[in-house]
Amino acid sequence: MSVPKKRRSTRMIELTRAFLESPNTLFSLTEWADTYGSAKSSLSEDVAMIKTTFETQGIGTVVTFAGAQGGVMYVPSMAFSQAHSLVVSLIQKVEDPSRILPGGYVYLTDLLGDPYVLRQIGRLVAALFPAHTFDVIMTVETKGIPLAYAASYALNRRVVIARRDSQITEGSLVTINYVSGSNRHIQTMSLSRRMVPEGARVLIIDDFLRGGGTLKGMSDLLKEFRATPIGAFVLMEAESEGVRLYDDHISLLRLNMLDDTHQTLKVEAGNVFSRWKAEADYDRL
Amino acid sequence: MSVPKKRRSTRMIELTRAFLESPNTLFSLTEWADTYGSAKSSLSEDVAMIKTTFETQGIGTVVTFAGAQGGVMYVPSMAFSQAHSLVVSLIQKVEDPSRILPGGYVYLTDLLGDPYVLRQIGRLVAALFPAHTFDVIMTVETKGIPLAYAASYALNRRVVIARRDSQITEGSLVTINYVSGSNRHIQTMSLSRRMVPEGARVLIIDDFLRGGGTLKGMSDLLKEFRATPIGAFVLMEAESEGVRLYDDHISLLRLNMLDDTHQTLKVEAGNVFSRWKAEADYDRL
Repeated sequence: MSVPKKRRSTRMIELTRAFLESPNTLFSLTEWADTYGSAKSSLSEDVAMIKTTFETQGIGTVVTFAGAQGGVMYVPSMAFSQAHSLVVSLIQKVEDPSRILPGGYVYLTDLLGDPYVLRQIGRLVAALFPAHTFDVIMTVETKGIPLAYAASYALNRRVVIARRDSQITEGSLVTINYVSGSNRHIQTMSLSRRMVPEGARVLIIDDFLRGGGTLKGMSDLLKEFRATPIGAFVLMEAESEGVRLYDDHISLLRLNMLDDTHQTLKVEAGNVFSRWKAEADYDRL
Repeated sequence: MSVPKKRRSTRMIELTRAFLESPNTLFSLTEWADTYGSAKSSLSEDVAMIKTTFETQGIGTVVTFAGAQGGVMYVPSMAFSQAHSLVVSLIQKVEDPSRILPGGYVYLTDLLGDPYVLRQIGRLVAALFPAHTFDVIMTVETKGIPLAYAASYALNRRVVIARRDSQITEGSLVTINYVSGSNRHIQTMSLSRRMVPEGARVLIIDDFLRGGGTLKGMSDLLKEFRATPIGAFVLMEAESEGVRLYDDHISLLRLNMLDDTHQTLKVEAGNVFSRWKAEADYDRL
């Protein structure tokens, strides 16, 4: 009796790894049945157990597609309660007066370098923007890049990075000028022509939103590729004195007050919870 | 009999996930025993099965530390044969004449946006530079960033990014001028003062090495922090006409010939295999 038990355990480990390392990827039960020399019905039971465990842990679900082209796929997500805990812990970390920088900025670079924080943010983005709603993740250098890759790892979607200079290593580029929202400066942004297919649906990610000029710039740049932004995610937003140029975004945090004279700052949750629909999406799949 | 069997399966899924999502992190068997209401001996058996499966799959090992402060830890790695396959597949992808850019450059941006490729490169870096040998990963914007985060995810080490401009959002900075190896231009590089603790051991990562000026610049910048580079990893190196300013690196690929008149290029493996010691490291742990 102990040999078949061990084989199920080994399968469990390997299937769990396959799902976690290749989210939103269709696996064929027929191929797995060949690999493991197991009946498809046993593998279906394994997958059902993994699905239940993942759902209990709040990290998403496993979806089964029937038919000849069918298979199983891990769709990552995040439970509402986990998202809430993440935001609370980030607020605690960010509301530290030593983070106050001149000019109304907040030091966030350490968080953007932390793989533990990024992994969680990635799964949160997966909960907000399921992979079937878009094809490519876009950001602009430099500080949006870690967030974009966090989402890329969680969702298994490619990243394209808009550059502020025209680098020869990007090949031919599409370049636009745009108005930076906060100080009304004219800035330049370029995107490699090869990186965004025509008609692509694009999730925009950036670290900080104030006037919205950068998000608007990215959105305008995508028009040159006949691509469509399906939404935008930012780590933190702050009030802008002028008109905001981009409004259709989801923010994780909101910088509500920053007083560099008295070294105090106030951070709260962004609009993420008012836009939450992840749990409803479980049912739609 | 079916209830305990299911519980072992559930444990297998959850422990596998814990290891894969938190590599190089010490887990306490005692705490797990409490969580699962299982005997430590059962959990030890679970961990032994996961260790065997991970080693068979060539993705690393699970190390057990004895004593009161003991526990279990997943140490990610990559089998030599997988590293070989990865390099062969990258050579095939890169040796495509449509990648040739003016000035002897190769278009690699698509690979640096691909989460599947990056996940594998991350594990390869883990095989070359085990986490116990360094504290922090350093890169310079922009194209080294995806590689640095790939290693960060695989190894669970923080990333610090040197900037080419002095951004206010980085707080106080240490800035150096350095000589770019290929064209002998003077360039500037800055690193946030808060990001590198004194005495830190640092793994340097970049996308491309020609003259070695950038790697030398990063290494020099670290001296200002009294930090020590323990090694450098680059995706691709190419011959430089002048003296190479940095030599202590491991490269995955080598650009051997690029002829933009005849649109041909020749890529081979870098020095990665001559530096391979990952399997020996298994025994040292």
